[in-house]
Amino acid sequence: MVAPGAAAGTPLGTPWPRTATRGADGVVSVGGVSLHDLATTQGTPLYVVDETDMRGRAAALRTAMTAAFAEQGVEAELFYAGKAFLCRGVARWMTEEGLGIDTASLGELTTALSAGVDPARIGLHGNNKSDAEIELALSEGIGRIVLDSLVEVGRVADAAAALGTRARAMLRVTTGVHAGGHEYISTGHEDQKFGLSVHPARAGEDSPALAALLAILDRPELELLGIHSHIGSQILDPAGFAAAASEVMRLRAELAERSGALVGEVDLGGGFGVAYLPGEVELEPERIAKETASAVAEAAATTGTALPQVSFEPGRSIAGPAGITLYTVGTVKPVRLPEGSDVAERLYVSIDGGMGDNIRPALYGAAYHAELVGRTSAAPLVRARVVGKHCESGDIVVHDVDLPADVHAGDLLAVAVTGAYGRSMASTYNLLPRPGVVAVRAGKVTPLVRRETVADLLALDLG
Amino acid sequence: MVAPGAAAGTPLGTPWPRTATRGADGVVSVGGVSLHDLATTQGTPLYVVDETDMRGRAAALRTAMTAAFAEQGVEAELFYAGKAFLCRGVARWMTEEGLGIDTASLGELTTALSAGVDPARIGLHGNNKSDAEIELALSEGIGRIVLDSLVEVGRVADAAAALGTRARAMLRVTTGVHAGGHEYISTGHEDQKFGLSVHPARAGEDSPALAALLAILDRPELELLGIHSHIGSQILDPAGFAAAASEVMRLRAELAERSGALVGEVDLGGGFGVAYLPGEVELEPERIAKETASAVAEAAATTGTALPQVSFEPGRSIAGPAGITLYTVGTVKPVRLPEGSDVAERLYVSIDGGMGDNIRPALYGAAYHAELVGRTSAAPLVRARVVGKHCESGDIVVHDVDLPADVHAGDLLAVAVTGAYGRSMASTYNLLPRPGVVAVRAGKVTPLVRRETVADLLALDLG
Repeated sequence: MVAPGAAAGTPLGTPWPRTATRGADGVVSVGGVSLHDLATTQGTPLYVVDETDMRGRAAALRTAMTAAFAEQGVEAELFYAGKAFLCRGVARWMTEEGLGIDTASLGELTTALSAGVDPARIGLHGNNKSDAEIELALSEGIGRIVLDSLVEVGRVADAAAALGTRARAMLRVTTGVHAGGHEYISTGHEDQKFGLSVHPARAGEDSPALAALLAILDRPELELLGIHSHIGSQILDPAGFAAAASEVMRLRAELAERSGALVGEVDLGGGFGVAYLPGEVELEPERIAKETASAVAEAAATTGTALPQVSFEPGRSIAGPAGITLYTVGTVKPVRLPEGSDVAERLYVSIDGGMGDNIRPALYGAAYHAELVGRTSAAPLVRARVVGKHCESGDIVVHDVDLPADVHAGDLLAVAVTGAYGRSMASTYNLLPRPGVVAVRAGKVTPLVRRETVADLLALDLG
Repeated sequence: MVAPGAAAGTPLGTPWPRTATRGADGVVSVGGVSLHDLATTQGTPLYVVDETDMRGRAAALRTAMTAAFAEQGVEAELFYAGKAFLCRGVARWMTEEGLGIDTASLGELTTALSAGVDPARIGLHGNNKSDAEIELALSEGIGRIVLDSLVEVGRVADAAAALGTRARAMLRVTTGVHAGGHEYISTGHEDQKFGLSVHPARAGEDSPALAALLAILDRPELELLGIHSHIGSQILDPAGFAAAASEVMRLRAELAERSGALVGEVDLGGGFGVAYLPGEVELEPERIAKETASAVAEAAATTGTALPQVSFEPGRSIAGPAGITLYTVGTVKPVRLPEGSDVAERLYVSIDGGMGDNIRPALYGAAYHAELVGRTSAAPLVRARVVGKHCESGDIVVHDVDLPADVHAGDLLAVAVTGAYGRSMASTYNLLPRPGVVAVRAGKVTPLVRRETVADLLALDLG
């Protein structure tokens, strides 16, 4: 059955959103909405989220995790990592799909609360939580505060005491496991700002993590829910999660031995990798679920402890592939290259956005895929570089992609897998207003985040 | 004479703003305003601009350039590159110091115009100018549009014809000269989105730059002012400017030979390097002025052409060192490192901002300097890393800096040389509102850009 308003067409497949299809006229539709119509009514650049895909990714992860851990007789829980992309609409979708919301700032926490998310289903992260963040979290009774340092144990306990409440706490630890992509987005190694090491600094000492867990147990204002580990980002091999799970389970057993308290939960964080380019394969929910469930069960057996509840915090793997950025092509400039270059000529295809709306290529060297989405072309493919309109030569959105040689001003071009860390990391560099975000589903367009205007930027200018 | 409200104290020197002094109590003042008082009244994080320093840098560059080129009998002109940091207040300062304003977007152009800058003193750059940008530039009669491609020659000429006006145009060329820092911010080489090459793609052909210049001369709606070259950023050796000047002068002579038109101006762009760390030396205005003036004069003699007027577009070298970011320290966490690390223990010092307000360390690997600015300390120095509060392990503002071992929550910490590409490239990652910008001068605080609030961010959320 075709959804109302859905265009018939050929599915685009990876790395495009699940409902993306290309019609006979070459126009791509997502969620049953023609990108040509979207560009006309909403303008470009525009972030477009396939609501069906994003919800479906959340649901698939939840189903896979629940099933794998149910086999071990325990529950698995998911928290959507709001840093990937959070607005009230997304917070509601995730809630409806049975996920909690992970936040890392006053802004993210306020967004989740103002979306009506049950505070019990909200978590708060952060290596340097402000007093305001801690107070809001406690006064709203959020489900979990992930403590990140010894000093924060005292701060949160004191704040809870002052408010006459009890804080539900986890402790973030570093296991030394370090998985995933680029240096800037990998965590888990121990020379970093987050967490406390599970390894003693000197033989015979307690590890910083164990010492902090014991300190938490010492404070009656804190209810210790469990232990949290996050090993990296854009991880494509589940082995890292299994290794981290073993370390965390060992620490949990050590704490039980020392204190008698066997904490009920282990949070293994997020970082599940996605496919950014055609031919790439994402880390499938079933694989993560199966391997982590096995690792946790094995570690429980080895340490002779009961199995804990397990939680995860996916962000990119839910939001990333469900979102695209829609641009209009402007200047197209062929540049002849000297001998010895990778190609004889490179076609510089300028779009009406750039590093302001997608900093990841410049920041992490991230590779993206782009296609023309407004028409067919019989022209041969040529090596192109998709560049933005910022006043910086490093303003490159797609370093290398083959586009039809007849690409021209006015063409619609989409970049795939920009749903995570696109809008959330966007800047107004060169005083370019940030694009809006719309959701599409079953032929319907729902604006999520309003497009900025030059007037918005000037409203902050006090001169 | 001490300015009213100026604190007595010891000048901090490079890389701090010119008026920065440290009092006997250890509190640093800038522009005669105590940073302690600023933090109390304005909150942190906060961008602070030393107005005296920023104006002084603009004036010093102008004086040096004017003097060096006057010796050759020609004029030199400066345009402040707004991309470094532009708001109405800064646009007015630059105008008062005798500089024009370079813009690269509708937002920057609108800011300059709304500050009351004479349109004749405004330039518009951009590899992919929108119709709206071109129309505003033409209808306001701005002084120069820097054309960036052959297609833009036609677009701007057509737009001028439609508006019944004439566009004052320059052509941006690439000379192959490639100077300065990191790959992402270096321009001038020819495999890039900007400009047209001065070198023919094949022997016997016209160069793309010459072809475009001839095309400009063919359009009566365009008045060809001159040729523009920009070779890179954070350049510390003036030789690159001299080399580029020779190439541009050669092209100018070639155009004169072909068309009879000897254009009156050569713009050598910006990219003058600054000192980011103690002990570093900036590229001095006098050196740039002298070497470029010599190179232009020599090229004029070689080609037998009259000397052109020369213009420059400094941004970072005016705004960068005049600005600092003021933060409050939060969590301080010592992390013991494994053997073989650079230090046995690293002190992670968290601040209340981070990669959202300064992306340059993560984006370019840029090094910065930080100091405690609210007190004295007799504690020994330890190796520290200044990290932000974003939910990302790569959120590092200063990779390595020695700070007093007793640094603690509540301490004021300032990072130097953030006046350029700090606020202008800032994001709201993790829904952290962007800091405000204040100017300080002679004991007076002038707010330039309002601090954002969580409510500002949520106002864009349509859910």
